[in-house]
Amino acid sequence: MTRVLSSALKDHVDQTIHIEGWLHKKRLLGGLTFINVRDRHGLVQVVIKDKDEVEKLRGLQVGTVLAVDGQVVAEPRAPGGAELHDAKLTILVPVTSEPPIEIDKPLSHKPDNLDTLFEYRSIGLRNLQETAIFKTQAAITRALRDYFYDHDFTEIHTPKLLAAATEGGAEVFKINYFGKEATLAQSPQFYKQIMVGIFERVFEIAPVYRAEPSSTTRHMTEYTSIDGEMGFMDINGLEEGLSDLLNYVSDYIWKNHEAELKLLQATKPQLPQKIPSLSMSEIHERYSKSTNQNTVGEKDLRPDEERWICEYAQKELGSEAVFVTDWPAADMKFYHKSQTDNHELAERIDLLFRGVEIATGSMRENNYAEVLKQLQEKAGGNPDDPGFKPLLMAMQNGMPPHGGFGMGLERLTEKFVGLNNVKEATLFPRDINRLSP
Amino acid sequence: MTRVLSSALKDHVDQTIHIEGWLHKKRLLGGLTFINVRDRHGLVQVVIKDKDEVEKLRGLQVGTVLAVDGQVVAEPRAPGGAELHDAKLTILVPVTSEPPIEIDKPLSHKPDNLDTLFEYRSIGLRNLQETAIFKTQAAITRALRDYFYDHDFTEIHTPKLLAAATEGGAEVFKINYFGKEATLAQSPQFYKQIMVGIFERVFEIAPVYRAEPSSTTRHMTEYTSIDGEMGFMDINGLEEGLSDLLNYVSDYIWKNHEAELKLLQATKPQLPQKIPSLSMSEIHERYSKSTNQNTVGEKDLRPDEERWICEYAQKELGSEAVFVTDWPAADMKFYHKSQTDNHELAERIDLLFRGVEIATGSMRENNYAEVLKQLQEKAGGNPDDPGFKPLLMAMQNGMPPHGGFGMGLERLTEKFVGLNNVKEATLFPRDINRLSP
Repeated sequence: MTRVLSSALKDHVDQTIHIEGWLHKKRLLGGLTFINVRDRHGLVQVVIKDKDEVEKLRGLQVGTVLAVDGQVVAEPRAPGGAELHDAKLTILVPVTSEPPIEIDKPLSHKPDNLDTLFEYRSIGLRNLQETAIFKTQAAITRALRDYFYDHDFTEIHTPKLLAAATEGGAEVFKINYFGKEATLAQSPQFYKQIMVGIFERVFEIAPVYRAEPSSTTRHMTEYTSIDGEMGFMDINGLEEGLSDLLNYVSDYIWKNHEAELKLLQATKPQLPQKIPSLSMSEIHERYSKSTNQNTVGEKDLRPDEERWICEYAQKELGSEAVFVTDWPAADMKFYHKSQTDNHELAERIDLLFRGVEIATGSMRENNYAEVLKQLQEKAGGNPDDPGFKPLLMAMQNGMPPHGGFGMGLERLTEKFVGLNNVKEATLFPRDINRLSP
Repeated sequence: MTRVLSSALKDHVDQTIHIEGWLHKKRLLGGLTFINVRDRHGLVQVVIKDKDEVEKLRGLQVGTVLAVDGQVVAEPRAPGGAELHDAKLTILVPVTSEPPIEIDKPLSHKPDNLDTLFEYRSIGLRNLQETAIFKTQAAITRALRDYFYDHDFTEIHTPKLLAAATEGGAEVFKINYFGKEATLAQSPQFYKQIMVGIFERVFEIAPVYRAEPSSTTRHMTEYTSIDGEMGFMDINGLEEGLSDLLNYVSDYIWKNHEAELKLLQATKPQLPQKIPSLSMSEIHERYSKSTNQNTVGEKDLRPDEERWICEYAQKELGSEAVFVTDWPAADMKFYHKSQTDNHELAERIDLLFRGVEIATGSMRENNYAEVLKQLQEKAGGNPDDPGFKPLLMAMQNGMPPHGGFGMGLERLTEKFVGLNNVKEATLFPRDINRLSP
């Protein structure tokens, strides 16, 4: 008999059907045995009366893989609005040991339980709340690509094995590459810029690596970076694009995955069509005025300031996301572009969402002579370094005004589903203390 | 004025429009100056009569970024069936140095020119033939994901930083991980199996790393692996799925990217709906009978045998792809499953396409006791090794019959577009001798 999935149960009321899945829960109630069978779409409640059938489950634990043939009966209190009666069980793979972590009730995400959560990930992810996080993450990724396709971006695959550490020195992992030294890419920055010279609009969603020497709620040593880069575009176009993208993803997941999001008690973010923007100095002033801190003149936002300005934007501007503009140019990487009418400021926008920076965007210097000067002055970089040469070659041979952004998939997921640590939104997180599972 | 793209030119005949792009070619003909302007969709031919306009191009090289305002005139001999007249030029980014590699005629892909091809990749990729390869690759990736979505697979992101080298020891890159040793993933094998326990059907398209100590036409140190894994499925389901997938991708790219494929002189592969399969021993016998080689009894196919059997399949079975079944079990990895009625043979299928193996698929041993035994007997592995533990934990807690495959995106691209080296189908290839650009 063809397998019916849990999601289709209610289409088969009064019919005898065949299901397959995992034993998810077992309980006795008024002389009856109730089991929940989990498949890739959710749960089926099965009512077992027959003693011989109940006997088949003796000694078997959650996780047992089984098939059930039974009659579908409408039951509003059951998951999916129906349950199986007159069940005949076939045990496909018996499990006799107890699971190392409970899977039939929500797992604690308290900071002091995270290590346990990650240690038993192989099994803990079978919990429906955990599954919902990563179903949503898959949907976010799909929505991002839909947006890129709809806007004529071409997907690229750039190397993560690099000859030299071109951006920042300290937080780079080093590899033994046949006796030579290689490094792991911290971002596809130069490659995506080069590829603007070919496709104008490119994107990549792929792992990047940072040798982050501390364990925080915001950083990991490996994460999935969403990178977009566009040519023939200015900073306003970049801001509009990012604003549209965040709205698109939010609408997509709430349209297609409301059940998962509600299970996680997530709320749909308040996002105007045009996400508001505030300059860094304005944020420093407002924050300093409202708190007993003084950040005026600082070159970055403090983590608490990021949280504060997001709350402010929600209350005063009706938006749970906000752009931070007008960053000081002095601390920018050599490939960034300064504002034409104020060289002290960079053409940069960061996107904050629910208290944390989820994306950094900027225009890139596309004038060859200028980028060469910035490389030498700012970074002390050698234009003949094989790490810089391919980018400089692109600039020397004509690059249009262009800019782009990098966004962390795990942070984006964390904020959409309402978690507090980026690692909770990562299947198998990596940090200084964790390389397994 | 709004920018019009090259692809839309013919919709604007007799109108004055504005285009932007790169100077791709310049030539004089009968007192007129013709230029080709390249944008993300292709070329626009521009005819310049006015001497002041021609003067603007003096000293400027290919790659110059410019805008042109002009009138669209139907011209069957021009790319896209129309060209621009009465052109007014605006130079956006002048380029005065000659390009390091020609971009207006096909670049040589002869083996002795590949180093040059890769060295100047930043610019060489602007060549329309090169662009067509990677436009097709992006379409292949999109088609693969469409297929996975349509068949209810969930996308996963698994870590590439691992504690231990769990599969094969020699070809693993080692990283300095805060003073400890870590390794780079050769495949997402264990993680995708674990995730079958959660989502039943999962896929990942992401980089993997092999410390391949030689430079060949088939191998790189970094490539994009297409991984699929399915639960509640047998080897026939896997074979059907792979057969469907290859057909789907072929139909998709030929439907949506025929222009690029024809530019590359590619031909649509002959693929029956059900790709034929031959056992390894049968292939050995046929090959040995037809050539002066003797491979009977060998445990793998020789590269020349892979080419031969593909030619045979095309001639005799009307298929440019063929499955190789019935592999000897003895040499399989510990997680593979043997055939129920013949333990000497593995439940494995490799997919050959146009002379090369593009995918390896197999059923996995899902019985905990059996997989534990195989780990200890075959691999001499320690079940407490943090590399094996998460997979074993999944098996101990109930895994359905499952199997999957790994496929190389670059090999797939190479074979669809008709190249001879996997590196030609890689934007920035990596091998023992190449870490840049």
